[in-house]
Amino acid sequence: MLTVLFSAPARRWAEYEAPLTTALAEAGIAARLVTKADRPGDVDYIVYAPNGGLEDFTPFTGCRAVLSLWAGVETIVTNRTLTQPLCRMVDAGLEEGMVEWVTGHVLRHHLGLDRYILNADRTWAPQVPPLARDRRVAVLGLGALGRASAEALAALRFRVLGWSRTARDIPGIDCRHGPDGLRAVLSQAEIVVLLLPLTAETEGLMDAERLGWLPQGAVLLNPGRGALIDDDALLAALDRGQVGHATLDVFRVEPLPEGHPFWAHSQVTVTPHIASETRATTAARVVAENIRRGEAGEPFLYLVDRDRGY
Amino acid sequence: MLTVLFSAPARRWAEYEAPLTTALAEAGIAARLVTKADRPGDVDYIVYAPNGGLEDFTPFTGCRAVLSLWAGVETIVTNRTLTQPLCRMVDAGLEEGMVEWVTGHVLRHHLGLDRYILNADRTWAPQVPPLARDRRVAVLGLGALGRASAEALAALRFRVLGWSRTARDIPGIDCRHGPDGLRAVLSQAEIVVLLLPLTAETEGLMDAERLGWLPQGAVLLNPGRGALIDDDALLAALDRGQVGHATLDVFRVEPLPEGHPFWAHSQVTVTPHIASETRATTAARVVAENIRRGEAGEPFLYLVDRDRGY
Repeated sequence: MLTVLFSAPARRWAEYEAPLTTALAEAGIAARLVTKADRPGDVDYIVYAPNGGLEDFTPFTGCRAVLSLWAGVETIVTNRTLTQPLCRMVDAGLEEGMVEWVTGHVLRHHLGLDRYILNADRTWAPQVPPLARDRRVAVLGLGALGRASAEALAALRFRVLGWSRTARDIPGIDCRHGPDGLRAVLSQAEIVVLLLPLTAETEGLMDAERLGWLPQGAVLLNPGRGALIDDDALLAALDRGQVGHATLDVFRVEPLPEGHPFWAHSQVTVTPHIASETRATTAARVVAENIRRGEAGEPFLYLVDRDRGY
Repeated sequence: MLTVLFSAPARRWAEYEAPLTTALAEAGIAARLVTKADRPGDVDYIVYAPNGGLEDFTPFTGCRAVLSLWAGVETIVTNRTLTQPLCRMVDAGLEEGMVEWVTGHVLRHHLGLDRYILNADRTWAPQVPPLARDRRVAVLGLGALGRASAEALAALRFRVLGWSRTARDIPGIDCRHGPDGLRAVLSQAEIVVLLLPLTAETEGLMDAERLGWLPQGAVLLNPGRGALIDDDALLAALDRGQVGHATLDVFRVEPLPEGHPFWAHSQVTVTPHIASETRATTAARVVAENIRRGEAGEPFLYLVDRDRGY
């Protein structure tokens, strides 16, 4: 009988207890699910969210893996007490939610929906937008979420440019990589989607210089990580029209503080970190599968590379 | 040398002259393109838009086909002087534009974008929408535009219900037909897309009774034909909340008259007949291909069935 510690805020336990119990049983794993470890040395696996209070992994001497409920692990990976294998969450529900948010907001800007939704002038003034096949959209970051989003946009016939740190080859996507690739991608992009992990290399990636590479009036979508953007540089780029609109789902401080200039800026749309959320049913299956793999001596899914940071 | 009469408003000629000349040459057709027929009996084909002034087809005794630039032919099909074969326009650009409008507006309502675009309260209040796989969208009309739209929504994992007059079978779409099918589809639909042709049977289809079959708060999208809807019944359904929102691209009178209640209604979005527009380059190829077929004795593409009316 394995001991699995669920370390996350209490409301998550309410959400996950039943789906995890079911998923473990379906995977053929006999496990005791606990939310408190009286004897940390006996814990076999930790299901983990960083905001659940656990920060010192030292006592968990028998723990075979820490299974994150979050896709982004930048706050976990720097924890020096965490020496066990760490797995990110790659959840089908999370991926689907992200694809929907990205596709919806790209189409909103592509079709110019705001004008009709705001309906300020109430006049009949037809302006037919270009077809998607004539619109260049860049997706920065081609991990699971970036790739799925890029493919959904390509299926709608957008001209999709993809950028990643290392070379990728995805059918239907014009893939570039490295510093030169970034400039080539940004200088063509009418709409840019940020889906990069947050690392030392990507922190503040969209600074004054990189924002300056965009065509005048480009639209920036950030459902990735708040710190990918230099906020002051973005506000300046918006004010001079270099960036035509920014739709932001993630921020350096969340909730976005009252009075932050993003709330009031007419060319900024704030969505409250809803682009994508792990869904308990599908995420529980990923956790159970990784425990099954750990017990069978098979490689873990979505194992984090500590050097890369994701 | 064939004589092809281009009968449409002058601005269309400016748009079509070059693409049509190119497309005819590419199809290997030697033709003289004219915008006025001095000897109507010599005209071999008519490229036609109903708002170009030509209403009496009687003098065109040698005309082998009338090739509409419009997808909707309800204003043409009732013309008793038109005895020649009539072909609708099915244009790839038109289809792509429609798919983009439909997908964009479905996602807008699915994700609840208006709230963030309007940004009235400037407060951080996360509400994660359901996944597309848990959202039922109905597409009424499964012709070229309806089918392409339904398939694009299904590719995004929406649960798509399709309805058509006669039975259809489309992979990934839950297809129903006939009067019983209509009630089954409408009673489940959270979002309804109208892409039916306008015929005697479909005129006023969305009347008080049919609107009453919808679940409370359903969203209605009409990029099809204005007269598919009973406007007064829709306004009443909006006012009692049966219909939560209506996004309308087509109207019984266009441009939608100033002062029409749709302009001012908070739960109505008006787009000015831009959901889909024939693009000259791709449409010219369809016209040229049909002339080639006519000359080769092959069946025309998109031939209108006068009895069905489309």
